[in-house]
Amino acid sequence: MQKLINRQWRLASRPVGEIKESDFEYREEPIPSPKDGEILVRNIYLSLDPTHRIWMSDRPQYMPPIGIGEVMRGLVIGVVEDSKNLKFQPGDLVSGALGWQNYAIASSGNLIKLPQPLAVPLTAFMGPLSFIGCTAYFGLLDIGKPQAGETVVVSAASGAVGSLVGQIAKIKGCRVVGITGSEEKCQWLLEELGFDAAINYKTADLIPALAKFCPHGIDVYFENVGGAILDAVLTQVNLNARIPLCGLISTYNAEEAVPGPYNFSQILMKRVLVQGFIVNDYVSQWDVAFRDIGQWLQEGKIKYTQEIVPGLENAPQAILKLFDGRKMGKLIIQISDEP
Amino acid sequence: MQKLINRQWRLASRPVGEIKESDFEYREEPIPSPKDGEILVRNIYLSLDPTHRIWMSDRPQYMPPIGIGEVMRGLVIGVVEDSKNLKFQPGDLVSGALGWQNYAIASSGNLIKLPQPLAVPLTAFMGPLSFIGCTAYFGLLDIGKPQAGETVVVSAASGAVGSLVGQIAKIKGCRVVGITGSEEKCQWLLEELGFDAAINYKTADLIPALAKFCPHGIDVYFENVGGAILDAVLTQVNLNARIPLCGLISTYNAEEAVPGPYNFSQILMKRVLVQGFIVNDYVSQWDVAFRDIGQWLQEGKIKYTQEIVPGLENAPQAILKLFDGRKMGKLIIQISDEP
Repeated sequence: MQKLINRQWRLASRPVGEIKESDFEYREEPIPSPKDGEILVRNIYLSLDPTHRIWMSDRPQYMPPIGIGEVMRGLVIGVVEDSKNLKFQPGDLVSGALGWQNYAIASSGNLIKLPQPLAVPLTAFMGPLSFIGCTAYFGLLDIGKPQAGETVVVSAASGAVGSLVGQIAKIKGCRVVGITGSEEKCQWLLEELGFDAAINYKTADLIPALAKFCPHGIDVYFENVGGAILDAVLTQVNLNARIPLCGLISTYNAEEAVPGPYNFSQILMKRVLVQGFIVNDYVSQWDVAFRDIGQWLQEGKIKYTQEIVPGLENAPQAILKLFDGRKMGKLIIQISDEP
Repeated sequence: MQKLINRQWRLASRPVGEIKESDFEYREEPIPSPKDGEILVRNIYLSLDPTHRIWMSDRPQYMPPIGIGEVMRGLVIGVVEDSKNLKFQPGDLVSGALGWQNYAIASSGNLIKLPQPLAVPLTAFMGPLSFIGCTAYFGLLDIGKPQAGETVVVSAASGAVGSLVGQIAKIKGCRVVGITGSEEKCQWLLEELGFDAAINYKTADLIPALAKFCPHGIDVYFENVGGAILDAVLTQVNLNARIPLCGLISTYNAEEAVPGPYNFSQILMKRVLVQGFIVNDYVSQWDVAFRDIGQWLQEGKIKYTQEIVPGLENAPQAILKLFDGRKMGKLIIQISDEP
């Protein structure tokens, strides 16, 4: 730890196609001092997420894009080092969008204080007990509205969100089928997480595989991917199926316009609901999700896996793993040591 | 009227691309006699609708396709000629899916008795006071949920459903923009129906036109068309916009797979709701719609236009008008005289 230097990754250029390391610029700056009302946070964990690819582009999106030359946006867990705000004390553990850097200045409105002493590993607040958990919870339960006995399909099923979606659907009594990208991931879904079936989209013929593993059709499809998988699912949906639209990762690197699903008309024929959502829409209800997910964690009903890459310097390389199918569960950069 | 012959149009072949007259087969049969519990109806008006193109195909759809050789399905208004069912008397006016033929045998479960004496023209029961009115009413109000001051866009705006959608949205205090296919139709929407703006999609540059006429964005898009119009609308939708998906007429004649909207990702970014629906889903609530629409008709708040083509023999030719933009309002075949 170089205490006197704030190391940062800034956005150097908007990616064309896949993200390249040259799209990031390394910068060293003095560690800022908090002014009245502000808090200085030492960043510990940085969350790397598919949505970074959206923020790095300037296509129409749900938040302002990251500006060229700005510090990369990112969710962080950190510890308060200095505070000129009565609500926060040095030693408090916090989370917030503090960026790809060692240190950040925050205002109290941008920080969530984590409960101390910790009853779970600190990184749980970058997984099931973070926006990740809320994304799975509200997308599945509020939009998907799965009923016991229904069939729930989730894509990117071994990802941070998808793996939670499947487990919550199991808790709700559903048949759960995961779509993922390797035999190893399929095994994990089946043996560790209790999915009823898993499909490797890289080797399976999707439509017959879905027909086989969803013999009563698909009632809820939690969509993280888009493209050919959505098209295949639309051939197997039941009347009044629900499709929470959480992500479209298969399209994020596209350089040319990507067509919507060829089976779009099935949304009409089967009276399907498609609802886009962003977890921020539910911020006033997050505590409800954290209460339930916290209980399921304690009861051992929810498992999660994380890949923790040490060193902020490795973030530009590590983020590529989100798009090439190499990682399983949540991808996290460890910027500094836990207190 | 040849009293002793039941003239019929049957499905001869599934259309490839546009419907051709040769896809229908003319047949003459004896007029059937009702058995116990059955009713013999003389058909008066036959409704021609875009959904006929779906039923004539064997692609996946919301009802069983019409079988090759079967009488063409179609909504009819008729008069009871003979009844072996206590609920119906000769002279009763009825509606039901009685098909493209002069006479039909029905059971009481398949017939709706129209109120007599009539307070409105009989053909109103093939327009605002039929499934057409219910389609506009429930799609707009139950799925679109327009609020006063919001902007509602409707495609196929001069069609049977679209023209009602726009007028109901005006009653609800919305800004209403119609998309249609000729200057004459635009004038009708503006001058007769009170739309706030009308766009001729055949001559306008859609995205700038929508931006101009929807300066506060689009809150509800009532979708009858699909294709390029949906794509343009998705560039202008507001956060939490609603898209009742009623029809996709631009795709019905397609011989090759049609891509979904290229701007599909806007459904995610803007948290849009897309909900397919079929009016039959609301059958238990139709009386609510008929009560409101009936009142609006009496108050002069709703107008409708119909093109009535005389002669069942002309149905195979007349239905082509639904797809080439030649008709305005509801297309009806007059099979026999009103009593």
